[in-house]
Amino acid sequence: MKPYVLGIDIGGTNTVFGIVDARGVVIASSSIKTKKHNNVVDYLDELHQEAQKLIEANDAVDKIHGIGIGAPNANYFTGQIEATVNIPWPTPLPLAHMVSERFGIPVAITNDANAAAIGEMTYGAARGLKDFIMITLGTGVGSGIVINGQLVYGHDGFAGELGHIIVKRNNGRLCGCGRTGCLEAYCSATGVARTAREFLEVRNEPSILRNLQIEDITSKDVYDAAIAGDKLAKDIFDYTGTILGEAIADMVVFSSPSAIVLFGGLAKSGELLLKPLRDAMDRNMLSLYKGKVKVLLSELKEADAAVLGASALGWEAKPIPSAPSTVQAAPIA
Amino acid sequence: MKPYVLGIDIGGTNTVFGIVDARGVVIASSSIKTKKHNNVVDYLDELHQEAQKLIEANDAVDKIHGIGIGAPNANYFTGQIEATVNIPWPTPLPLAHMVSERFGIPVAITNDANAAAIGEMTYGAARGLKDFIMITLGTGVGSGIVINGQLVYGHDGFAGELGHIIVKRNNGRLCGCGRTGCLEAYCSATGVARTAREFLEVRNEPSILRNLQIEDITSKDVYDAAIAGDKLAKDIFDYTGTILGEAIADMVVFSSPSAIVLFGGLAKSGELLLKPLRDAMDRNMLSLYKGKVKVLLSELKEADAAVLGASALGWEAKPIPSAPSTVQAAPIA
Repeated sequence: MKPYVLGIDIGGTNTVFGIVDARGVVIASSSIKTKKHNNVVDYLDELHQEAQKLIEANDAVDKIHGIGIGAPNANYFTGQIEATVNIPWPTPLPLAHMVSERFGIPVAITNDANAAAIGEMTYGAARGLKDFIMITLGTGVGSGIVINGQLVYGHDGFAGELGHIIVKRNNGRLCGCGRTGCLEAYCSATGVARTAREFLEVRNEPSILRNLQIEDITSKDVYDAAIAGDKLAKDIFDYTGTILGEAIADMVVFSSPSAIVLFGGLAKSGELLLKPLRDAMDRNMLSLYKGKVKVLLSELKEADAAVLGASALGWEAKPIPSAPSTVQAAPIA
Repeated sequence: MKPYVLGIDIGGTNTVFGIVDARGVVIASSSIKTKKHNNVVDYLDELHQEAQKLIEANDAVDKIHGIGIGAPNANYFTGQIEATVNIPWPTPLPLAHMVSERFGIPVAITNDANAAAIGEMTYGAARGLKDFIMITLGTGVGSGIVINGQLVYGHDGFAGELGHIIVKRNNGRLCGCGRTGCLEAYCSATGVARTAREFLEVRNEPSILRNLQIEDITSKDVYDAAIAGDKLAKDIFDYTGTILGEAIADMVVFSSPSAIVLFGGLAKSGELLLKPLRDAMDRNMLSLYKGKVKVLLSELKEADAAVLGASALGWEAKPIPSAPSTVQAAPIA
């Protein structure tokens, strides 16, 4: 097998790509601006050109086994980016096919959270685990579910939207998806900021968060205040961790995973989030699963994580012989 | 491959077993009393003796490919029945190993709801489906989850307890599991009877259910009243179907199945249950999945379903070479 894979993480702002070896070392990486080109062909031209430079500079010509791409709303089965507001090109976009043709290398594609789960299983905290759930706590809440060593794609490639399980059936917050009460509306970075605004309005006690413009408060501000000992800020983390722990107890009855792996900005809040989370998991866990489910933090360096996650998919990429609508890449073994 | 399998369904009262062919035809079946023998060895003696009679009478000697067993709290990985109140013998009980030794035929074992899912996939409404969720609506609510053609067992064999997702986070009903607010406390046959008692106490309108002793009301009484046009009884089905539909919308984000298959007494309530269920699914479904998930009713004849489900597992049974604690049967392909 060729010794390297190319990982490409397509974000709303930057497209980061890197050459990765079998041990998860990012040999070299670079990036281009995702939105610089209104035409996707121009974008692919620049991506190909810059990636080739990187490949040549690192003596990796003919050594790339496959290309893995993580992108918003990317579908593993179809190889397409489905409707999304985060990229400037018309969707559905048969990106796996286009990149494969351009590079002459097999390509597999999936969404960001699935890529994170594969990255964690290949190089990170979930090495050796066959049943775990990856939860990414960023601007939104994403998830990648691994059962019996395989990523769960569902019948249409869209499985694993655990950010949209309903945690407040009545009177829940409006979510970006148009419904109310989703996990994402509470346990994302933006959810924490919303909780801060709610608590500051409803409660009377003092808080250093009151020194800030209420509309500008971020989850980072809440974290800093909690670390400084602010009681109300700590309560916000208790509230967030409790909701997430309750939701995780429900997820566990589905697939009985041996671990939950947390990734993303909020996961770095440490015990502020993890203590109430674990307490809520314990209180709400069906006895069958009690004490069996570890809560792990991602072990991938944040700067590398997205590229590593995408790259891990490259090991399993197979040549794409046909039109994008019938693209079927291999399952993750 | 040998043409038959033997399916054994171990219930609290009866142990039913039958010879089944590859098309799902029950060639012959019989039963013994589960609780007749306080010693499991005596029970196995009778089971073996009666099954052998059946096998010989049907010219099936040396034609049984494998034995599949469905039993409460049976674990596919360990081959054991774990702690349960439904059988009279000490647990954990290495039943797969014991039956395999006695019959000299490979044995695989799983719990009732998983067996139902495999039966439905092999012979019933889920033929040809690779991603579906089986929900059994009986005295309790059980489930068997199939993803990419494989039953989900989880890291320890205990996955798929969807009857115990929390549908009422606050002020929920006490469940048999000791927690409150579980799906099973609302959407099982006993849950429907509990709803009837609640509605009759809290509401004032007339209902033919008021002619019955309130403590004796069953889900069948509620069904009969609803069919007779009783408004309150219909409301009970609306309430039940709505809760189940909301819960299913949440299950869908996990595995993006192409279908939900319903089985068991309540599933036979037809549109009384299905209409509010589908309405609630539609109202609560994340747009990504809307209109993609079919609700199907089991196609297995009720009298045969348990044996058929268990038998289907027999096709995949592999010889058990070692001690029960390390038993690893084959995954369902």
